[in-house]
Amino acid sequence: MNHLLDASAKGVYAIAATPFTAAGDIDWSSVESLVEFYLQCGVQGLTVLGMMGEAQKLSDEEAAELTRHFLRCVDGRVPVIVGVSNPGSSNLVRLSKIAMDAGACGVMIAPLTGLRTEAQIVAYFDDIIAKLGQEIPVVYQDYPQSTQADISAEGFLKIIDAHPSVVMFKHEDCPGLKKLTQIRKACDGVARRYISILVGNGGLYVPQELARGADGIMTGFAYPDMLVSVFTLFSTGRNSEAEDLFDMYLPLVRHEQQPGFGLAVRKEILRRRGAIRSPAVRAPGPKLDAYDLAELDRLLGRLEVRLRESTNGRERVVA
Amino acid sequence: MNHLLDASAKGVYAIAATPFTAAGDIDWSSVESLVEFYLQCGVQGLTVLGMMGEAQKLSDEEAAELTRHFLRCVDGRVPVIVGVSNPGSSNLVRLSKIAMDAGACGVMIAPLTGLRTEAQIVAYFDDIIAKLGQEIPVVYQDYPQSTQADISAEGFLKIIDAHPSVVMFKHEDCPGLKKLTQIRKACDGVARRYISILVGNGGLYVPQELARGADGIMTGFAYPDMLVSVFTLFSTGRNSEAEDLFDMYLPLVRHEQQPGFGLAVRKEILRRRGAIRSPAVRAPGPKLDAYDLAELDRLLGRLEVRLRESTNGRERVVA
Amino acid sequence: MNHLLDASAKGVYAIAATPFTAAGDIDWSSVESLVEFYLQCGVQGLTVLGMMGEAQKLSDEEAAELTRHFLRCVDGRVPVIVGVSNPGSSNLVRLSKIAMDAGACGVMIAPLTGLRTEAQIVAYFDDIIAKLGQEIPVVYQDYPQSTQADISAEGFLKIIDAHPSVVMFKHEDCPGLKKLTQIRKACDGVARRYISILVGNGGLYVPQELARGADGIMTGFAYPDMLVSVFTLFSTGRNSEAEDLFDMYLPLVRHEQQPGFGLAVRKEILRRRGAIRSPAVRAPGPKLDAYDLAELDRLLGRLEVRLRESTNGRERVVA
Amino acid sequence: MNHLLDASAKGVYAIAATPFTAAGDIDWSSVESLVEFYLQCGVQGLTVLGMMGEAQKLSDEEAAELTRHFLRCVDGRVPVIVGVSNPGSSNLVRLSKIAMDAGACGVMIAPLTGLRTEAQIVAYFDDIIAKLGQEIPVVYQDYPQSTQADISAEGFLKIIDAHPSVVMFKHEDCPGLKKLTQIRKACDGVARRYISILVGNGGLYVPQELARGADGIMTGFAYPDMLVSVFTLFSTGRNSEAEDLFDMYLPLVRHEQQPGFGLAVRKEILRRRGAIRSPAVRAPGPKLDAYDLAELDRLLGRLEVRLRESTNGRERVVA
Repeated sequence: MNHLLDASAKGVYAIAATPFTAAGDIDWSSVESLVEFYLQCGVQGLTVLGMMGEAQKLSDEEAAELTRHFLRCVDGRVPVIVGVSNPGSSNLVRLSKIAMDAGACGVMIAPLTGLRTEAQIVAYFDDIIAKLGQEIPVVYQDYPQSTQADISAEGFLKIIDAHPSVVMFKHEDCPGLKKLTQIRKACDGVARRYISILVGNGGLYVPQELARGADGIMTGFAYPDMLVSVFTLFSTGRNSEAEDLFDMYLPLVRHEQQPGFGLAVRKEILRRRGAIRSPAVRAPGPKLDAYDLAELDRLLGRLEVRLRESTNGRERVVA
Repeated sequence: MNHLLDASAKGVYAIAATPFTAAGDIDWSSVESLVEFYLQCGVQGLTVLGMMGEAQKLSDEEAAELTRHFLRCVDGRVPVIVGVSNPGSSNLVRLSKIAMDAGACGVMIAPLTGLRTEAQIVAYFDDIIAKLGQEIPVVYQDYPQSTQADISAEGFLKIIDAHPSVVMFKHEDCPGLKKLTQIRKACDGVARRYISILVGNGGLYVPQELARGADGIMTGFAYPDMLVSVFTLFSTGRNSEAEDLFDMYLPLVRHEQQPGFGLAVRKEILRRRGAIRSPAVRAPGPKLDAYDLAELDRLLGRLEVRLRESTNGRERVVA
Repeated sequence: MNHLLDASAKGVYAIAATPFTAAGDIDWSSVESLVEFYLQCGVQGLTVLGMMGEAQKLSDEEAAELTRHFLRCVDGRVPVIVGVSNPGSSNLVRLSKIAMDAGACGVMIAPLTGLRTEAQIVAYFDDIIAKLGQEIPVVYQDYPQSTQADISAEGFLKIIDAHPSVVMFKHEDCPGLKKLTQIRKACDGVARRYISILVGNGGLYVPQELARGADGIMTGFAYPDMLVSVFTLFSTGRNSEAEDLFDMYLPLVRHEQQPGFGLAVRKEILRRRGAIRSPAVRAPGPKLDAYDLAELDRLLGRLEVRLRESTNGRERVVA
Repeated sequence: MNHLLDASAKGVYAIAATPFTAAGDIDWSSVESLVEFYLQCGVQGLTVLGMMGEAQKLSDEEAAELTRHFLRCVDGRVPVIVGVSNPGSSNLVRLSKIAMDAGACGVMIAPLTGLRTEAQIVAYFDDIIAKLGQEIPVVYQDYPQSTQADISAEGFLKIIDAHPSVVMFKHEDCPGLKKLTQIRKACDGVARRYISILVGNGGLYVPQELARGADGIMTGFAYPDMLVSVFTLFSTGRNSEAEDLFDMYLPLVRHEQQPGFGLAVRKEILRRRGAIRSPAVRAPGPKLDAYDLAELDRLLGRLEVRLRESTNGRERVVA
């Protein structure tokens, strides 16, 4: 029986890239190395088929097989969330069942592009959860920059109050710090049941968001080990050290966070770190040119220097 | 003292064009002829400085002077609503006061582009109405195709419940028939105070909307006399005749309803009908080329034939 | 060997609905009756898996099987275009090959949502057509209201000049009459090779667009027989009769053209006409309530009367 | 006679905030102190009435008077660009003339929201520049995240080739590094006339953009002195030191770059630095709550420590 996601989830859930060969096929063996990479980074969980996982470019069969392959590779060592957002509700439900059957701990769903009012978003989740059943844990992905489906804190609370299976809020509205605080206060386990809040936006605001009560980070940044250290330091009250460490990587966080382009940067770094064999982004998608690569060299070189200079590199070896 | 707009408002409120000379200046004398034109058409009210009035291209001084000139020309014969939407709240308030001082019956306000959630829209109206004072009657303009600020029926009801000065709902969401029905039922004068609902969208759905309980029409269609007749027929239970008349004009309603381009068509018709001297749209704006004009000739020729053929043209002379 | 689409294509290409059971499964037997319905209406061709075909809600397997089933039912009696737009290029190519193998005459592709400049759109088509090969005829679907990927006439001509396999322009920009005229003039067979232009937008501007040189109509309006008659009348110089006939149906054309909601109206009419067994729109999708159905009754009743009243209903029986 | 902006412009053009009192009126005396602040920071130029200057919330009279007041305060010590974007071309031209009469060196214009194709953007600039005359230097503001009016490098080059008065490209598309490189290469002074490229986006990518050939920075970041030092270091080949300095401020650059919210942060910092008396953003606009202020305290405290720790704070005192 699966471990099921619940509101106590904490820490770093890396959004897994989908490795492709240069020809654009799924690189199954890189899935294995990528999983080992993430686990060695110490992540608390994984999210597969997220937007950064290029889920929308997979065939149904690829999506199903990739889900199963990831889950086999992880083999229960950490919980795995599967992104299942889809324009068709039947597709969404089918992939959710495949994921849960394969051992996922829950599914992540964004409100559909084209939903224009909060009433429509609430009705959409009512319908989807009725179709899914209350047994499948759900992560609400709040990413209006991509979906154009905006919700206020109070709108989201309607969903929370109606559906116990929604246990996590994936926060990536921007600017969104105020909304994060509102939801944290509203879902504090006293006034209302607690929910887990993980933050995205490529990690750009992690120290501020953890300070505002986020329970962790769900993003695809190519140094999840740094995020794990930052989270651990924060959890043990060493906020300042945590932020020092984060800030060393911030130039890269910012560079990766460029919409679209950043994914190509991220996969190139994963390749350099040995996690995957090819940095290929499936078509249509960006490619790094010689200039982009030299620019990345410089950024990585600067990071290396900075890490070396930090006293004994102590921040790197938290645990 | 002004006549003030209230929830009993009914009928046709023509959205007035702003007449320009070919050189792009306001054509003050055409304002006079245009007002007489609208009044001869039998409209129940006027709305000036609407989007179709090219309000956003006027200078502040022009907006103020145009408001005053319209009100002088109307001289109390029908109520006049003034569109005051503005990115700056102080600008909005100033123009509202100018309008009310000049004799307007109320102001029309759309939620600002950039408001992304219903909570933000509600807060915006809270703030605006606090600044305006409760004495100025307000029309809520629901035009998300232009503002991208969507609101559900239930979101709008929060505004209604908080602000007695909001007395009219300018309906032009599309598709929007269901929302119209929801608001009509909710604001029926029993469960909740009545509000006036006038419909826009260039009049494209007028018969359906009147059947669903709209109180009238607020649009810039170049044959407001037709709209007045349709409204009168509907009001006296002759729905079928009303719709027959409307349908004769529907090819033109549809032609004028093309975003942007339609405004140039509309002003050309107003010119041909003697309401204004030049069809000029202020820059930047569309111009009709020779082909567009010939196309319009054909459409108007067809309308003429159709009206002649209808038995004695009786539908034209309702009242 | 397939009949292949070329620039001489003319007439009415009905965009086929996808019939679902009330439970949301594909209703395979209704596909058969629907095909017979369209053919009896006299359409020159069919387009399957268009946006109105709810293509984005199908699974890959359903899309492939539905394509094959449609093609088996049509059995070569008219050419069939298959909509293959997809966020992933490999998915797009795979479905294209399935379609062509099953006997389609060509594929329809819209520029991807997220392409922001004309240079990006042109590059996207360069890449897609390189992957498809030059043998598969391509229809460019210009529907920026849905894709947000805008192109000017001159931008589109770059694609035409680079790719001989692009033989048809599906026009549904709005306002778009001017662009239609520009492309018609540019691709007149003299200055530049001729391309076929079929118009969409639910048919709302058909008479104006045919007069501007469109070669036909590609839309899902529930009375394709009317569109066939209108096209035939236009083709034989009886433009005025054509427009008279069109205008009789215009109230319904307009009603069906409401975004989203209109699809439910359309399927209900197809059900009433015996073309499909259930009007169900797959989730998430609109449903008609009692009021919507009564409203449609009135509109259809009015159409019936109007057709009866037209002299001997002659317009209906154009050959 | 004015100094006129030309393609040799280099360095930091600070986008000036517009100081308001708590009551929302323009704080004229803070304009003076703000100008002195910017000049003491060593900026090469100023831009007033930019989006971050809340230009769209000013009345015409305020915009004109503010322009004049800024220019009087600057008194020719650095060149001043005035943002004149406006939905109405006549308003745009009038403000441009006011600005040039008052001593501005040029005007900044973004393509209008609602322009959907590059052909429309090019035509818009053709028309605007015809109205302005060729004597007024123009900065093209490429900020599609705000305007939704996207242009490719090649589209922009059409404007450059047609209009010698366009001498500067304000770059803030994102992701936009590739476009920056394309335009830099195309306008290199050999293949085509040189144009000045200043970068925005709150400065988030300054080191990368300078390395790609940008001529400077035009943004409202609250530490323009840092930007000046970074620019100076880069100009003298000390790129690495420049980036070290920049990276120390990056946490704050990122914090200020949050859309909307960031403006309130920026004005609060300007207040703390003594540049303005009140951090008020004019309505409608964000306000910092107690939590936001404490968060900012932490960020500023961290910056202070970091600057102290950097060897002798040498990076701060470039000259």
